[in-house]
Amino acid sequence: METMMGLVIRESDSQWEGWADPVIGAKSPVRWKLLITGDRTPTKGLTIGIAEVPPGVSQLLHHHEPQEAYYVVEGAGTVELEGRALAIGPGSALFIPPNAKHRVINSGTAPLRFVFVFPTDTFEEIQYHYDE
Amino acid sequence: METMMGLVIRESDSQWEGWADPVIGAKSPVRWKLLITGDRTPTKGLTIGIAEVPPGVSQLLHHHEPQEAYYVVEGAGTVELEGRALAIGPGSALFIPPNAKHRVINSGTAPLRFVFVFPTDTFEEIQYHYDE
Repeated sequence: METMMGLVIRESDSQWEGWADPVIGAKSPVRWKLLITGDRTPTKGLTIGIAEVPPGVSQLLHHHEPQEAYYVVEGAGTVELEGRALAIGPGSALFIPPNAKHRVINSGTAPLRFVFVFPTDTFEEIQYHYDE
Repeated sequence: METMMGLVIRESDSQWEGWADPVIGAKSPVRWKLLITGDRTPTKGLTIGIAEVPPGVSQLLHHHEPQEAYYVVEGAGTVELEGRALAIGPGSALFIPPNAKHRVINSGTAPLRFVFVFPTDTFEEIQYHYDE
């Protein structure tokens, strides 16, 4: 059994990632850095990363079994969450229940950056399902 | 059984809080806003808030049974984590294992602000234990 260890991960030391599927990537040109995920860090039960939605871009509407939370660091836009449109900006926290359909729309002129959190061991285990 | 609901909580709509115990409050003049916690929001399994450590202030060394993660939004300082001193700044993510002794030291001139996350239903259930 792997031992968990206290650690600090710096965003500047992590690499940007995007969707491996080129069709999804073209429709949803969002990038993210994984910071805490048990397949890379000696951690369990929490997965954390930072995501960036470029200006004018809308994520594809999607859902996943694990619940998720966001904290918006920079930028402004809208989250479509369970069919409602809610304004978000710096300091907005979102709670996304299990299987809730959601997407972020950056309606501003600057990148929209948010921290995402899953109460899971890893990011790898999250199965994304698209709803459009 | 309460139903979970997707929601957005704005930091600007939440109130600052501090330690109710005046002795702890004097030694650790840190303030925080709770954003997602199941005793106030229809949520489970994730507790999220934003904390602010004033310049020159050191948190009391402490631990709690649930593990925790931070994401530093603003400011610079040090985290003492399991006996090691680690530099933190904007974009630093921390993983704090169950019962790991930790504290944040703001060695800068601006407030040090970080998002804290517990994989728990509520903040209320976290029992803080002090190690100094």
